[in-house]
Formats: sequence, C-alpha cells, structure tokens
Amino acid sequence: MSINISTLLESRTACEKADAVDPLRNQREDFYLPQGLIYLDGNSLGPMPKKAFEHLEKAISNEWAEDLISSWNNAGWWKLPQTLGELIAPVVGAASGQIIVSDSTSLNLYKTVYAALALSEGRNVLVSESDSFPTNLYILEGITSAQQNIQRRLVGIDGDSLEELLDDNVAVVTFSHVNYRTGELLPIEELVKKTHEAGALFILDTCHSAGVLPVELDKWGVDFAVGCTYKYLNGGPGSPAYLYVAKRHQQVALNPLSGWWGHASPFAFEKDFQAAEGILRFQTGTQPILSLRGLQAGIEIAQTVDLQMVRKKSQRLTQLFIELVERRCGNYEVALQSPTDPEKRGSQVSFHCLNGFSIIQALIARKIIADFRAPGIMRFGFAPLYVSYTDVWDAAEALTDVLKTEEWREERFQQKHEVT
Amino acid sequence: MSINISTLLESRTACEKADAVDPLRNQREDFYLPQGLIYLDGNSLGPMPKKAFEHLEKAISNEWAEDLISSWNNAGWWKLPQTLGELIAPVVGAASGQIIVSDSTSLNLYKTVYAALALSEGRNVLVSESDSFPTNLYILEGITSAQQNIQRRLVGIDGDSLEELLDDNVAVVTFSHVNYRTGELLPIEELVKKTHEAGALFILDTCHSAGVLPVELDKWGVDFAVGCTYKYLNGGPGSPAYLYVAKRHQQVALNPLSGWWGHASPFAFEKDFQAAEGILRFQTGTQPILSLRGLQAGIEIAQTVDLQMVRKKSQRLTQLFIELVERRCGNYEVALQSPTDPEKRGSQVSFHCLNGFSIIQALIARKIIADFRAPGIMRFGFAPLYVSYTDVWDAAEALTDVLKTEEWREERFQQKHEVT
Repeated sequence: MSINISTLLESRTACEKADAVDPLRNQREDFYLPQGLIYLDGNSLGPMPKKAFEHLEKAISNEWAEDLISSWNNAGWWKLPQTLGELIAPVVGAASGQIIVSDSTSLNLYKTVYAALALSEGRNVLVSESDSFPTNLYILEGITSAQQNIQRRLVGIDGDSLEELLDDNVAVVTFSHVNYRTGELLPIEELVKKTHEAGALFILDTCHSAGVLPVELDKWGVDFAVGCTYKYLNGGPGSPAYLYVAKRHQQVALNPLSGWWGHASPFAFEKDFQAAEGILRFQTGTQPILSLRGLQAGIEIAQTVDLQMVRKKSQRLTQLFIELVERRCGNYEVALQSPTDPEKRGSQVSFHCLNGFSIIQALIARKIIADFRAPGIMRFGFAPLYVSYTDVWDAAEALTDVLKTEEWREERFQQKHEVT
Repeated sequence: MSINISTLLESRTACEKADAVDPLRNQREDFYLPQGLIYLDGNSLGPMPKKAFEHLEKAISNEWAEDLISSWNNAGWWKLPQTLGELIAPVVGAASGQIIVSDSTSLNLYKTVYAALALSEGRNVLVSESDSFPTNLYILEGITSAQQNIQRRLVGIDGDSLEELLDDNVAVVTFSHVNYRTGELLPIEELVKKTHEAGALFILDTCHSAGVLPVELDKWGVDFAVGCTYKYLNGGPGSPAYLYVAKRHQQVALNPLSGWWGHASPFAFEKDFQAAEGILRFQTGTQPILSLRGLQAGIEIAQTVDLQMVRKKSQRLTQLFIELVERRCGNYEVALQSPTDPEKRGSQVSFHCLNGFSIIQALIARKIIADFRAPGIMRFGFAPLYVSYTDVWDAAEALTDVLKTEEWREERFQQKHEVT
C-alpha cells in the first residue's frame, strides 16, 4: 500500500479511502474514544485502552478489596515495576533486564544524572538543550545548586551545537528525542557517538517518542534513558515513568535515592543499604499500584504493533496536516514551528500564532482536542493508532474556519486555566 | 460508656456486648471487608473504603476515558496533591497550607532531610534510630554517601538515647512516631523540645500513626513530617505519601528534587527554576492521578471520626489481645515485643516467636490476616474503625489453637514468599 499525500490533499473522500485501507485502522478499536471527538492530544495524555478498564476493575475489586495484602505476592504487585519494564523493553529497543517503571520522569532523570556523574569521576559538567522540557532543566539546576562544583552548559545558550560544548570536563549529556514544543526529532545515534567520543555519558529523554516511533536504546549505545508512559504509551493520567540503565553500567551505577525497594533484600529489613543487583537498584519507595495497573494495557498495544508502520503513518498524518493548514491558513499569521522534513519530525505538529490560546479553546469547543504551550504554540499530536486521515482533514477544516470566522475572539475562549 | 478489659477477658459474649455499644461500630460499614475475614493488617495495607470504589470508577470512566486532558483543570487533577494535603491536615494536627500528597515516603524523607540540612548551615550530623523502618536508614545513608562531610548517628548504635547524640553538630533528627516492628509510640513533643534546645530540626515519620491516633504536628513544633497513606488512612496499595513543612520554614526551605510541579509558574515553561510559594515547592514531577483518586475516601473517613475515641478503642483492642495471648499462649515461647503500657503503644501488637513465619501463614489460612517481619516478629494491627472486640477474641483463640495443634508445622505453611 502506498498513500500519496497529494491524493489525500484533494478531498475528504480521498482521506476516507485511505483510512479504509490503512493497515492500522483496526487499532482504534483498542481504545475508548469519546463520541464525536477528534483527539490530537495523545502527546499530552493518551486515551484509555479498553483493556486498561478491565485491568483497573480487577485491581480495585479483586486485588485490593478482596485479596488485600496477599496481592503483593499473588497479583505480582511487588514486581510490577520490573514486569512493566520488561513489557516496555521491546518498544524502545532494549534487551531484557534494563528497564523499570517507577516514580516520575523528573525523579528518574535526577537518579540517572547522579548515577552518570558518579561514573564520570574528574568531570563536572552537565550538557543539555536550552529548549528541553523545563523539568529537565530544573532537575539539572537543582543538582548544580546543591553541588557548587557541578556546572551546567546549554546548547542554544552557551553554544550553538553539542560539539561546541563538549570537552574533557563534560560528564553527562542529556537530550530529548523529540522536542516537546516543536516536535523536532533529533539524530540520537549520532549525538551519542559524539558524546562518547568526548568521553561523556548520554541520557536520552524519550517522553515524546516512546510508543510512537522506533527507539533503539541498545543499538544507539545510549547509557541511560527516561520516558513518560501516559503520552503515546496510553498509560493513564500521571502513570509512572520508565527508567533504563544500560547493562554495562549496572554493576557500578548507584541510585542516589536509595530506598528499600532498591535494596538487595528488602524483606530482610537490614540496617545497612546493599544495592539490589541490576536495574532493580534504581527503585526507591513503594509504588502507586493502581496507576501502574492502568498502564499495562497501553504497553501491550505498543508491543503488538509494527512501529515502523506506525512511523510511516505518523509522517503522512503530520505532512497532510501541515500542507492543509499552510494552504488554507496562509493569510492568518500561523507559522509552522515543526521541521518541514518528515524525517526530522516526531509525531506532532506545532504552529505559532499570537492568538494561539484562544484558537485552541475554540477548536476544543468544536470537539477537536489539541493544546497550547506558552508562548504562542498550538500543538497537534497525531497518534497513528487512533487518528485517521479523515480526522486530519476535519481538524484542518475546523482550524481554517475558526481563523476565517474569527470565532476565537469570543469571550468564552479568552479565559485562562491553570493548566493550559 | 466504659469498657472494662477484665470484663472482655471473660468471654466472647462479653466482647459481642461491647461491640454492640461501641460508638465506632458503624464505621465498619464504610469499608469493603471480605466475607469471614478478620483483618489485622491495616498497619500494612488498609481495606478499601466503599466510596473509594466510586471515586475510582469516576476517575477512570469519566475523568480519564471521557474528559481526557480537560480533567487536569475540570476535575482538579493538577491540584490533587494540594487538595488531598488539605484533607489530611486536620487528621495530623496541621493548619492549612503545610501539606501535600506526592511521591513516596522515602522520596519525601529525602526532600525534607536535604531541606533541613540546608537550613542548618555549619551543622553536618543526621540523627535517627537504628530501629527505624529501614528505608529511612537507607535514605540517610544515600545522603551521607553522596556528601562525605555529612555524618549519620543512630540511637541504639552510637548511643543509647537522643540526648547522648545531640550536640552542636547535629542538623537534623528524624524519628518514627510508632515503631514499625514493635509498635512502640514515642513521646514526640518531648523529643522535639530536646532537639530544638540543641539547635537542630526535627523530622517526624508518621507512617504508623497517621489516621489511627492523635498526631499534633503544629502543636508539637515538628519542623517537617512525612507519612504513609495506605496504612491507617486506607488510601489503596502504594498510594502516594504526604509531606509536611511547617509554615515558618516555607519561605527558605528548598526541595532538592526541583521539578516542574514545584515551579512558581509551571505553565510558563521558563528556563530557570523559581520555586513555588509555600508547600507547593516540595512537588517534583507529574503525579499518579488514579492512585491519588483512590486516596480521598480514606482521608475523608479519618477526618470525620474522633481520633481520641479511636485511640481509646485501639488501646483496649491491643490490651485485650495482649492479655488473651499471654494467658493462653504462655507456654509456647511467644514473647511480647510491644510496650505493656498502653500509653506507650501504637495500634499494633508484636510477638516474637521462632516459628513466627509459619504461624502467620497458618493464621492466614484461617482467614485471620496478620503479617511477619524478619526476624521472628508476628505483627497484629488493630484498626479501630473496622476491627471489633470479638475479632480480637477470635484471633487470640485461633492463635492459641495454631500453637496447641502445631498446625503451623504443615508443609504448606513453610514456603517463603518474596513479600512476607
């Protein structure tokens, strides 16, 4: 099957035809999607897999209510971080024994940066991008504030490229696979290579890539990775994040947040800390079991699909949207923020517009869900498992109409919320 | 109403009569308790409040599945750590604006120890108890390993009492309100006073007291506190922990785990970290919403009951159990590990027995749920909201019978689980 963008651009009917032969068309049935909604915000919070509902019902009614503490053993609660990590592994190109699901992305980044620093004795510089998702910058800032000898250098502020910032003092480089604002996809394998050549370690943030495009942690030689599970892995609101430590570092890498779940014998209740073997030492405290239970179904879906096929469809969806919007909305000062080359783009398209906030509110009122990120960025996420070509067509039509009619000027679309 | 232990000791009928007039007897209806089970493990995992089921169903079906990202605002997801913190506040004697629910106890302890250290310039010693729940020791050990100038001193190893260990170098003292192994209740107000007189700060761990006995964080002058929500607050498996920072420290205390949820303007996506005002700066990353949702009902129950009344019943339940067991099982090398004075005891009774593990397994087979903690400790938790005097009678009878018949010797009770 080959779908041509220029054909899709012709008519809604052409999009419908493409949907009818889309090899991923049946995946939509795996999710609960509210009636009449076009959901272009899977890059923020994925919809609920139907099976997640079943798993959660069972966790609440059987495991908690009926079986109580026996579920720590019998329902495998205690091992969930590991079990779910093993399920994610093939989705991000990791061999067994290198991933756990635990805590948040911010906390996992803190753990990995400290661990990487400890592996890089004599080096004291952390390199990242000035355009990282801010929590990454804040976590690094927290570390440099606490330890005066550690410094932070940012691409975009302290230099224009990674190469410029690399020297013998750099301990750790941390980059996002896909930029949260622009959707830009970085050539990770190449960046890892440069980092290693400079003698530093590489931490990858896959929040905006895991589950929606091929990630090859092992093959690329990434040292540590973190990633979100509630976006393209559809794990539920705030579901715990994953953490990857390459096998070669596991014998020596230590978790600074050394809690009882990371102990070699947690139920021996020993007084001294003895790190567990392997990836398990990166656990800290007791995990939120219900939120972990909500996550399994989403990962299982990601496991069964061909991510190369997902990637191809994603590239077509984003390309179609960009071309439709640029053709129709060219007069409305809507400026593309995402790369034009589909190879350099994740599964999201961003447009800048001064009135972006109100425009997004007007779209939401029309049941087309996208989001806004200050300053002025309208983000549209295209998750190929449940977004169709026809959805893209309809979203572009609606955006055009909102701009033409100036509907966004309505009072009700001006009100700011706490979470935008 | 006055219930006399010596009357209760006479017969099961006497216990039934006491239950019939127990002012807390109707609270049991708030919980789902499996048929025929006597649940003496609320000190490990509380049973499910019936309303928690409703809240969770709504969170899954309406908030996540139907309303998707709009729930961050409309369902108050973003503010849940704060909302739930405000609900816990009166249960632990805290005025408004000092508590959030977020992350795990281990992580919250890490945050508060670092924050307290930073408030204690020139002091470099952390004091705790050698008999702390091990994760507390491990977290402190992680801090002393990362910062060579910080030292740890433990009551029970480096000295026999807090007084012996206090000097001008002590920055922080951290104690548990109730010991997880023995159930010993410490005189916190007195310990805080001694700590403050020595110029140090006090962090209280209320994992085994919050929700089951009066806690007075403000009145006692505690500086920081942490606590579990899945034990006597009945929040569900691994529900996030709470963290308290006394108002007087909030302007200067900083969270070392500085993530975007602790930023003054998280949705401005600024490059530099600016700590939020007040307690909110102790947040880090995105929280597990479903697990937070499961927690509200349990806190609401704790809010509505009179904790003085709960405490009185708890003291009677534990006293009755101790006296019944000591009278009947005196010949079986079962040794009380908990204080004999009810004023010095939390809501749990522990007995040491060489064959404790197998005895607990035999009790579980009889649907009397208690737990075992290495080495040799049988723990029985008495949550007065759903445990009756008759339950205590029946549990003591069953324990006696298991010992008399040597039922615990059966092969099926020898097998060790991962979580014991």
